[in-house]
Parts: sequence; structure tokens; C-alpha cells
Amino acid sequence: MKQLLATVLTLFFVGALSAQQPKVNQDRLEDRIFNLAEFGLQENGETERVAFSDADIDARNWVIKTLKGFGMEVRVDAAGNIIGKKQGTDSSKKPIAFGSHIDRVPNGGNYDGCVGSMAALEVIETLNENNIKTKHPLEVIIFPNEEGGVMGSRAMAGNLGKSALSVVNSTGYSMGEGIMRIGGDTTKFKEAKREKGSLAAFLELHIEQGGKLEKENLDIGVVEGIVGLNWWDVVFTGFANHAGTTPMNARQDALLAAAKYIVAVNEITNSFKGTQVGTVGRIKAEPGAPNVIPGKVTASLEIRDLSLEVIQKVYQAIKKKTEEIAEASNVSVEFLPLDTTAEPALTDTSIQTEIESSANALGLSYQYMPSGAGHDAQDISRFAPVGMIFVPSKGGISHSPKEFTSAEDMANGANVLLRTILSLDKKLD
Amino acid sequence: MKQLLATVLTLFFVGALSAQQPKVNQDRLEDRIFNLAEFGLQENGETERVAFSDADIDARNWVIKTLKGFGMEVRVDAAGNIIGKKQGTDSSKKPIAFGSHIDRVPNGGNYDGCVGSMAALEVIETLNENNIKTKHPLEVIIFPNEEGGVMGSRAMAGNLGKSALSVVNSTGYSMGEGIMRIGGDTTKFKEAKREKGSLAAFLELHIEQGGKLEKENLDIGVVEGIVGLNWWDVVFTGFANHAGTTPMNARQDALLAAAKYIVAVNEITNSFKGTQVGTVGRIKAEPGAPNVIPGKVTASLEIRDLSLEVIQKVYQAIKKKTEEIAEASNVSVEFLPLDTTAEPALTDTSIQTEIESSANALGLSYQYMPSGAGHDAQDISRFAPVGMIFVPSKGGISHSPKEFTSAEDMANGANVLLRTILSLDKKLD
Repeated sequence: MKQLLATVLTLFFVGALSAQQPKVNQDRLEDRIFNLAEFGLQENGETERVAFSDADIDARNWVIKTLKGFGMEVRVDAAGNIIGKKQGTDSSKKPIAFGSHIDRVPNGGNYDGCVGSMAALEVIETLNENNIKTKHPLEVIIFPNEEGGVMGSRAMAGNLGKSALSVVNSTGYSMGEGIMRIGGDTTKFKEAKREKGSLAAFLELHIEQGGKLEKENLDIGVVEGIVGLNWWDVVFTGFANHAGTTPMNARQDALLAAAKYIVAVNEITNSFKGTQVGTVGRIKAEPGAPNVIPGKVTASLEIRDLSLEVIQKVYQAIKKKTEEIAEASNVSVEFLPLDTTAEPALTDTSIQTEIESSANALGLSYQYMPSGAGHDAQDISRFAPVGMIFVPSKGGISHSPKEFTSAEDMANGANVLLRTILSLDKKLD
Repeated sequence: MKQLLATVLTLFFVGALSAQQPKVNQDRLEDRIFNLAEFGLQENGETERVAFSDADIDARNWVIKTLKGFGMEVRVDAAGNIIGKKQGTDSSKKPIAFGSHIDRVPNGGNYDGCVGSMAALEVIETLNENNIKTKHPLEVIIFPNEEGGVMGSRAMAGNLGKSALSVVNSTGYSMGEGIMRIGGDTTKFKEAKREKGSLAAFLELHIEQGGKLEKENLDIGVVEGIVGLNWWDVVFTGFANHAGTTPMNARQDALLAAAKYIVAVNEITNSFKGTQVGTVGRIKAEPGAPNVIPGKVTASLEIRDLSLEVIQKVYQAIKKKTEEIAEASNVSVEFLPLDTTAEPALTDTSIQTEIESSANALGLSYQYMPSGAGHDAQDISRFAPVGMIFVPSKGGISHSPKEFTSAEDMANGANVLLRTILSLDKKLD
């Protein structure tokens, strides 16, 4: 009886709150996803829109035109970030910003980045339709070249060095050339940097890119943070020798040691409690012929977690075990740290609470979870409080034409985004 | 007392026998090894002499000139085999042949093939010096392109197909073009085939290319046969996914399964008694990025043994275990047999006995052993009784500029070769 009463009250409460609040237009949101997918559409029905490509530039121009159509002031900063601004009613307030990216990996899908970007447009259009004015100015930010190293958000955080500008992507343009193509200015790209405290908050809606929400039949992920990651090359040196003439007990087989290391990475990563992941994705055996015992093997190691301390613990355990394996195998081993590292980026706990409340108010199920993938929000967290909202990806597939998120899931995410913006507008200074 | 007497008698016996028999000239043999190494000598002091290169052709011409200088009739057959003939005293006898190859692998050494070839020359020169005439005609055979697939000996056995002629080696010449360059004739290369029974015997002296003789401090290996080998590609198919967003328990990691397979190949090969070897020398993980769980891995498998039955037993055990690994790892696995196979080639047991007796008579220590590497003698065994004599390789190193066999070891092998030829000449029809 108590439970029934609670349920009835909850339903009433949710209904009452929802009635007060605008909702996004699910069909319009999905239509815009399909419109966006036409920029770079190939004959095979799939879209290619790598950063700096003609398709990327066309899609950016369409976004700019759409934002202007909403009555926003739109500018492209020196790093190529598209920033659309809707003034607030209180000129003393810092902006609440939200957005994502529309560039794609080669052979990617229609949802990664696009959902958060099109939801941002949908939020503005919904507010306009409902004549809702916020106290805080609102900023829609579409970050360029997220897939090529979170370029736009990194520049905003002041973390994009000159050396990165020479990195060439699959279009053949370097990052520097690409910035010029999309309307930025490499001689001034440091001007894209935004100071700490210059934003009241930043929110990013994104597809989960994992299978957790779908598996547990949940609508929303409240992102606790974006995991940090470290990369190493693990180099095993044995002795290359004739596979026919070298007896089994006289071998210094670098690949056999590397195989035992790969098994150990999996076992050790699993032996810790928590959501850390450890991966060996790249391997090279030299000389690499079926009839030669490999003398040298280079295998990668990637460890990700929300806590740098956990990453270090897992790494030390893997390193210790691997050194034992190498010694027993009569080969040597070296762990070479690679440049690719990212510190964990925690989201703001009070924004997490607002996202949770919004999901609750909308009657959506949710869970707190880390983001295993990097996102623009990661760099924005260096100078502003951030929040991230996840919606399910079918089968956990991403970076693939098979990527899919339903219109309902996208609308759920956009409604949580809209509601969180409105409640933050009330609560934040 | 008995033992002392036995020793004295043995020494006397060995001394008496040795006195009756000519011995090769150790210094001349080693000089010829050094002379040969000058063909293809590079500025870095190392020699490059891949089959069909200018250096190979120059070295072949020098060998031909040397054989002619010994008074031999020399011809180059349609496959490019150099055949020098010294007539015997009995015209009804089939030739006793011996030789090896002088082509080298890229970045190879001065001894592989060269020792057996230069020893063959030294045997003829020693016989000439001592005015020894054999009943059987003697043939020195220098096989072309051994390292590129035992080309010359394969053609002699009638096993070189037309399709092999299109294989290109590091010189840029195809086998067909190469045969033309070295004085063969591809329109007639089937004429190089020799019929069963056309040779009384074939003997090859070769460096061991393993570390067994050196390790056990032995002078001579009496080769029981050349092991057979089979190759497979083992293909693991999982699902490529984001290494950050895919939890450890939701992965279908093809590389993790492949790593367990590599460990199993080693354990299972070691679990059988005998001298079989099992090797994984080549591996490719796709897509091959540190931040992507490999969805597909192709790893090689090579198994060698003197017995096809043992190869099959080891293979079946590896296959069974790997299928269990794949199932437990939620990936699929396929074993694809590759074209590269070779049947074991056993040497003639009565020739083995003659080699053993020769070593004994010369006071040299020896052991019976398989050859883990392929040799020209392998194909010759298809149409003639063969014998092989091994001498130690320092550190078991071959196919490397570090390859080394001492002058004394080479001379020991050449003396066993000479003595075996002379005793076969007496015993064979």
C-alpha cells in the first residue's frame, strides 16, 4: 500500500514537473541527424566526413546557418570552434555552454558527436519556440577535429601546442592547414584559449560507445568522469634463429614471452576491483617469417581508469609479472612510455546531481558510470565545471557505420540536457 | 690394462688407416672460403651474394674455372646447376656426386652452403694431388638458388613447376629470369631432371646451423634425414571494439586468444618426446592500434619433424587445444594449411654407416642427428641414395654475418667426405 502510494505520488510529481517544462521535438532532432549525415554521403550509402574535408566544411556552414537562423550570434574562433551565443537576461552571468563535434572518424557512423551537436541545436530551437529566456547567456559550441585529437577543445583549454599542427589526417591536410581551411587562424590560435571561470558550466551529450546502458536496459548514463589513459610500447628482445635447427630448449623466443605478457595483462587487469581496462592492441614480431624464431617483439599496452593511482597500480603489477616472464624466457623486456597519455577528467559532482534529478523528473532510468572514451568535455574540464550525459549505443558499437542510437534515446538525452541547463540556470551564480 | 691395450691398438689402427688415406689441405680449404667471400664483398666488410646477383654470377664463373683447372668436364644444366665431372676407371659405374650451394640469403654468412661447396673442390684437388683414381665417375654439383627454394636440386628431382619460375627474389629477378642469367634455359629446364638410379650416391657436407654439436663438443653430425615441415595460418576472429568503452568481460579479443595459442604451441610441442619443433614466427593483429581491441589475428604455425606422423600428432593436439581456447575466449578460429610443406627426407642408412666409420677412422667424435633445415640433399634423395655430414656452427648461428665454422672443423668435415667417397667407391656397384 505504501509502495503504491509512493508510485502514484511519483507519477503525479513527474507529470506536474514535466508539464511545467518544455520538451524537445524528437522527430525534428532525428531529421537533423539524417540531414547532417548527407554531408559526405557516399554512393554506398555511408557517410565520410573526416575533419577538414569538403564535407566537413559544408556541414559546418550548415550548422552556422542554422544557429544564425535561431537568432544567435555566431563566431568561429582562431582554432575553428563554432560558437553560437544566445544572450541571457542577466548580463553579469557567465555563459552555460553545451555542444559536441560533427567530424567523424574514417568509416565512422552517424551518431558519435552528431547526437550531442544536433541536440544542442534542438535545445535552442525548443527554448525559442517556448519563448524561454535564461538568465545566463547560452553557448552552443561545435568543436572541430575531435576525432583527430580533440583539437578545438584542447585549443580552448590552452593545451594545443605548435607541434600538434603538423599532424596530418586522412584528408592529407595537416592540423595547421585544416585550421586555416575551416576559418581559424594558426597565427592566432592561442587566442582560442578561454580562462578558468569564464564559463558557468559546460554540458556534453554523447552516445555511450559501450554496451552497458543497452545491456542493463537503462536510458541515461550520468558520467562521473572521463578515464585517464597511458600508453607504453613493451619491447621483448630475444634472439632470432632458424626455426628448424634450433631445439625447443635452446630458444630465446621473444614472441613466446610476449604471448605470456598479453595473457598477464588480461589476468592482472581483471584481478583488480573496479572498471579499469587494460589492452594490447598492436603487436609486431621481427623478422616476422613463419620459419624464424622472433628475436624482437614490440607490443602496446594501454591502461585506462578514472584514477591515475589505479592506472599506476595496474601498470606496476603488469610490469613486475612481465619482468618475471622475460627472465624465465631468457629474453629481456623494456617498458617505453609513449607520448599518448591523458589525465582522468572528473565531472562536477553538483552537475552530476542535476543530471540525475533531470532524469528522475523525466521518469528515465539511469546509472552513474565512467566514460571510457575521450571527449571534448575532458579538456573543457580544465577551465570549467563540466557534466556529461550518455545515451545508449546499440550493441556498444561505435566508430563504425553500424553505430545506432534510437530517436527516442536521443530525445531522452536531449530532454535531460535541456532540463539540466534550465535547472543550472536557476542555481548557478 | 685391457683398456690401455685397446687404446693403444685403436691409436695404431687409426694411425695406420690414416696413413693409407689422403687428407685435405686445411689452409687451402679455408683460403678458398675467404676467396669465395670476396664475391659480393661490401664496404662494411660483409658479403652479399643472393642468387642471380652479379656477385653470384661472378662466383659461379670462378667455381667453373676452378673445376676446369682440376681437369674436369664442366657443364651448366638447363636449371643452372654447375656439374663438374671427373671420369672414373670403370665406365659401367654411375657417378658418385657431392656438393652444395654458393648463393646466400640477404645479410647471410660465409659458411652456409659454401663449406660443402669448397670442400667438394678440395676433395677433387686432394685426389688429383695424390693421383687417386676412383672406379666411379665423380660429380661436383653446385646447386643454384638454394636459398630461394632449393631451385637447382628441385629441378634435378623434377619437382620444380612452371609456377615457381615467377617468384621474384631480392635481386628483383624472377626465378625464370634468373635461370636465364646464370646460363640455364627455361624452355628446357625439364631436361635438368635426372632419373631414379642415375647416381650411385650423393653426399652433402654442410654446417649444422644449430648449436647441438658445439654444445656437446662433437666434431661430426651423421645426418639421419632432413625433417619435413608443414605451415598453417591460424586465423582468430573476434570483434574489434573501443578499448576504452568495452568492459573487460564484454570483449572478444582475438589477440588474447592468439596469445594463449602461442603459449599452447610451445607447451604441446614440448610435451611430446623427440626432437620435433613447433614455431609461431609471424603474427598480424587487426586493426592494430593500441586503443582498439583486435578483432582479427593471423598467426603462423610451423611444425617440423623427421616423421610425418609426429607432425600430424603434434598438429592435432595443438588444433584441439586452440579450439578450446577460442571457444572459451568467445572468438572463432580456423587453421588454413599453407602451400609450404616438405616431406621428411631420410638419408640412406648404409651411407650413414660409412660416414660413421669414416669419422671413427679419423678419430673424430660424432652423433646421429636430424637436419632441422632444408638442404639440396632433400630433393636429391627422391632419386638417389644420399648422405649428409654436419660440422659445428659457432653458437648455432646461421643466416647471419656472425655465422662461423673453424678451419679445423671444416677440414674434419672435408676429410670425412673424402673418406666416405673413397669407401663408397669401393663398396657400391
